[in-house]
Amino acid sequence: MKLLNLFNLTDQQRTELAKLGDVQVIEPADLNSENSSEIDVIYGWGKQAPDVLNKSANLKLVQSFSAGVDYMPLSEFAKKGVTLTNVSGIHAEPISESVLGYVLAFARGMVASQAARSEKKWVGDQIRMQNYILKDRTAVIFGTGRIGQAIAEKLQMFGTKTIGVSRHGRPADHFDEVVTDTEGTDKAAKADFVINIMPLTAETKHFFNKQFFDKMSSHPVFINVGRGPSVDTNALIDALDQYKLAGAALDVFEAEPLESDSPLWDMDNVILTPHISGGFKDYGNEAFTILYKNLASFIKTGEVAVNKVDLSAGY
Amino acid sequence: MKLLNLFNLTDQQRTELAKLGDVQVIEPADLNSENSSEIDVIYGWGKQAPDVLNKSANLKLVQSFSAGVDYMPLSEFAKKGVTLTNVSGIHAEPISESVLGYVLAFARGMVASQAARSEKKWVGDQIRMQNYILKDRTAVIFGTGRIGQAIAEKLQMFGTKTIGVSRHGRPADHFDEVVTDTEGTDKAAKADFVINIMPLTAETKHFFNKQFFDKMSSHPVFINVGRGPSVDTNALIDALDQYKLAGAALDVFEAEPLESDSPLWDMDNVILTPHISGGFKDYGNEAFTILYKNLASFIKTGEVAVNKVDLSAGY
Repeated sequence: MKLLNLFNLTDQQRTELAKLGDVQVIEPADLNSENSSEIDVIYGWGKQAPDVLNKSANLKLVQSFSAGVDYMPLSEFAKKGVTLTNVSGIHAEPISESVLGYVLAFARGMVASQAARSEKKWVGDQIRMQNYILKDRTAVIFGTGRIGQAIAEKLQMFGTKTIGVSRHGRPADHFDEVVTDTEGTDKAAKADFVINIMPLTAETKHFFNKQFFDKMSSHPVFINVGRGPSVDTNALIDALDQYKLAGAALDVFEAEPLESDSPLWDMDNVILTPHISGGFKDYGNEAFTILYKNLASFIKTGEVAVNKVDLSAGY
Repeated sequence: MKLLNLFNLTDQQRTELAKLGDVQVIEPADLNSENSSEIDVIYGWGKQAPDVLNKSANLKLVQSFSAGVDYMPLSEFAKKGVTLTNVSGIHAEPISESVLGYVLAFARGMVASQAARSEKKWVGDQIRMQNYILKDRTAVIFGTGRIGQAIAEKLQMFGTKTIGVSRHGRPADHFDEVVTDTEGTDKAAKADFVINIMPLTAETKHFFNKQFFDKMSSHPVFINVGRGPSVDTNALIDALDQYKLAGAALDVFEAEPLESDSPLWDMDNVILTPHISGGFKDYGNEAFTILYKNLASFIKTGEVAVNKVDLSAGY
């Protein structure tokens, strides 16, 4: 069995893989016209992958290193009978901690202090009484999967009311309430924090647009740790300029890297991070654990063990 | 009974005070040579207070609006038999939320992202794998009173190990361990976060000095939400410059407002907030609740109900 390594594998991880029997790791630099057509499994994704997908008659499994898989040719996978698994779940802790960091940066005056810093202004009296604590605040979280639940769990620990929004509106752990999309917008309009962690699909593209932001009567802080294209960036910038939103924390963008001429760089009521909220030091080991489980199961039974992506739903 | 109002009292609070019987509120603008000598109680502190302390034979109670009382003439109070109460306790929630905000800003790459922002640099690949989560990190908290415990409680919710440091080293809620000062420095040397919330006393002045910072072998993040003079600022700046510390979050300073020529303003591994970590919208009501309790008790029994300051210890 040939595994194309497009993420990374430590020596220890290679030793582990060897225990599964006949698993040969191919590095991208060693790809040639012959072995390209014999790849069984791809770990990760990258510029060599589409060619292998095209050429290999053996390709059966792609294990992504991300949770979102919107950048992959899902319909090609479906046509060729390729199983796709993601690493959904390992981002729950890091992303939920990032979201709490963003929330507290606004609540506790860190954003306002930073805004005054370039002029070396001491703005204690102005900020002190605008500060608030998280108790009895309301957060509306679009997406009630594992990451959404982890965000809700942490906010509840601080006494914040959590409202989830999903297509089906079914109850989920750590949400005081879960509603469907339409009702979600009305809830968001009266919230303190509006948080996006939805996958990117045809339905969620530009979900957060002018119509949405126009309704935000309580001037919430908007936080995007889902996917950039779920947001109409121009509408977001207008909403910030017109104080429909008190501020924003953005980890993902319609175009990444964020264009150097984007007005977002200079907006001092906006926290920017470069698509890092899911990252943490042990990421590679946690991703490998999922690859290993799926590969072991696949060799034994022909089926993966965890995190199979529904190729038509896109997540 | 005459109460000099040097903080603020809403109309509703004045109505509440009236229920206590003969309580006459004097505003600073209405002070004169006659009523200055008849003030029984001071609520808050301010430029008129020392003169009243000097002149009034009736002064029995000062209710501060802060937790720290290092700016007050404690030995004068002792000499004149004035009881001092503070508002210790109401800062526990806001300050502990601020500390979590600072901690997460470092852990989740927000500080590093902000540092790259002025040059509009997209530094995702550099930051992503340096990010960490709070589980299994270690925080050493100098001060195990109510605020220290609230900080420890929140860090424990995220899976961080909490070590408290106090003069007596007695166990306290939400600390995995409590040690005395000397041992505390050794613990801090190996920690991820070193947090100061000690009161300012002769013993804590410049406690965090060159000798202390020189020992920080694990390059922790230093967070000061206690008092500015507990830190030798020049030693702190050197420690940051020499990477003895990975960064700092400072809400209090040796001189406040922070001098405009302080190098701290321009250090991009430092979060600065202008002494606001204890502030929140409902501060005035919570402070009043303590004043009311103490005044009611004092009128009835001659003793205060809560938050009496030990004038010789200074807190």
